[in-house]
Amino acid sequence: MFYFAIDILGTIAFAISGVLVAMEKKLDLFGVFIIAFVTAVGGGTLRDLLIGSTPVAWMQNSTYVFVILSTVVFAILFRNYLKYFRKSLFLFDTIGIGLYTMVGIEKGLGAGLIPIMCIALGTITASFGGVIRDILCNEIPVIFRREIYATACILGGVAYFLLRKLPIENTYAYLAAIIVVIGIRILAVVFKIALPSIYREK
Amino acid sequence: MFYFAIDILGTIAFAISGVLVAMEKKLDLFGVFIIAFVTAVGGGTLRDLLIGSTPVAWMQNSTYVFVILSTVVFAILFRNYLKYFRKSLFLFDTIGIGLYTMVGIEKGLGAGLIPIMCIALGTITASFGGVIRDILCNEIPVIFRREIYATACILGGVAYFLLRKLPIENTYAYLAAIIVVIGIRILAVVFKIALPSIYREK
Amino acid sequence: MFYFAIDILGTIAFAISGVLVAMEKKLDLFGVFIIAFVTAVGGGTLRDLLIGSTPVAWMQNSTYVFVILSTVVFAILFRNYLKYFRKSLFLFDTIGIGLYTMVGIEKGLGAGLIPIMCIALGTITASFGGVIRDILCNEIPVIFRREIYATACILGGVAYFLLRKLPIENTYAYLAAIIVVIGIRILAVVFKIALPSIYREK
Repeated sequence: MFYFAIDILGTIAFAISGVLVAMEKKLDLFGVFIIAFVTAVGGGTLRDLLIGSTPVAWMQNSTYVFVILSTVVFAILFRNYLKYFRKSLFLFDTIGIGLYTMVGIEKGLGAGLIPIMCIALGTITASFGGVIRDILCNEIPVIFRREIYATACILGGVAYFLLRKLPIENTYAYLAAIIVVIGIRILAVVFKIALPSIYREK
Repeated sequence: MFYFAIDILGTIAFAISGVLVAMEKKLDLFGVFIIAFVTAVGGGTLRDLLIGSTPVAWMQNSTYVFVILSTVVFAILFRNYLKYFRKSLFLFDTIGIGLYTMVGIEKGLGAGLIPIMCIALGTITASFGGVIRDILCNEIPVIFRREIYATACILGGVAYFLLRKLPIENTYAYLAAIIVVIGIRILAVVFKIALPSIYREK
Repeated sequence: MFYFAIDILGTIAFAISGVLVAMEKKLDLFGVFIIAFVTAVGGGTLRDLLIGSTPVAWMQNSTYVFVILSTVVFAILFRNYLKYFRKSLFLFDTIGIGLYTMVGIEKGLGAGLIPIMCIALGTITASFGGVIRDILCNEIPVIFRREIYATACILGGVAYFLLRKLPIENTYAYLAAIIVVIGIRILAVVFKIALPSIYREK
């Protein structure tokens, strides 16, 4: 129930980020909905395709379609007020990537993959919806250019597999990993930390 | 036999639309063929991947490869005359999306999906070849920006599931749904109807 | 062992080509790694998805991840010296596409596909990593615009299926096909041969 609530809040935050990018590109109603949809479910879809878990997750549960549809309608109606929710949206998004990272990792473990591949799947689940959103909107994906985003997912995944080696319950490792993702992401944004630049240095 | 003829005509129309976009971008022969190919089979490929129906359809039947190859050769040779066939091409394309919508819906039913997911699959089958074409050509997909296109597929799909509830034969519902897609698309183009704009209104 | 060495050299060459494109676009460290990764494994991943061979190949063998990771670190550290290795890189890349074409064809045969689809799979394996790289970097894929690249893969695949009809051992046909791909690619680059232009001719 708690996870479900986070999942829905994360889906809403992702969908709204899709609506914002799509409206900047002046897409029509259908385009805005599709971009919101792929932002919200694209990462999980790619994950499911890579491990062969089909039909992909969103096809087996209509909740997502209706949540995203409602979010799009809401976001378009109140688009002039979305800026007042920026902090809440950031929080939902951040909690969302924390949860999605772990959902992806669990799916990888379920498919019998080794830890490094599970971490890759977790990162894909959490961050590739945004990659597909940016490609469909004809932009170089923002997570390839700046900000600690996918990096937070990777570090959270590493933390999870380290914690699992300790004699603690799996649930604690799971929750701790989510908190690591959220913590790193928030610290990176608050202190404007980026990956070390590889251009014109020294 | 009748469906097969529509399928081939639709494939030809889709492939030619791919050739036109690719030639505008000055792609070479290989590029033009690939764009024509993904425009024609991309929607069905994405559908098959999402439901896990592999090898994907075009790999199991070489007819499509040869039809598309011939179409590309023909379209390049007679490229200066293609404009005279614009209306025929529009008609083939429109009949094509009507048929492909229903092919996708049937595949969804076969995979045990609920109606709303079947409609999504039908719409993907009919319209995402063009989306992949536009992404490969570095354009924001045209169906996200204007025209009633995917919307016609969605409404046709809704009509199909409503009609299935009536005490009529499934074949009639199937054909009626195709006609709904075609009718809406033609009306939208003739009367220049677009989705209601969500920008600078009121 | 010999194949394995070629495979690794090809992976390195592909990854470096990804690093070069990504750095031109000023992507950050994470972005550079992802682009290098998809360039190296993207073609094989698409092949595996199309035939339903999941989890896809790179998820089942961590060698690729570590080779690509090392290559990216190396390529970034020595980026000012990469130009001196241009010829070696071209050679690795060319040997790589020769091998990958045949790997894809073998996978297609294993999936029970007819020759033309196997050749398509071989070409996808060898050349679609670069396509995905270019799309993620917001460019029209370079292999759609110029150079004999995918065409060399196609011709090598055709040569393979012709040679298999002769009373020779399969291994010879396999190796000969790789040599055909490599030979055509080298000849095309040395003599600057491109596909016949379809624009403003006659």
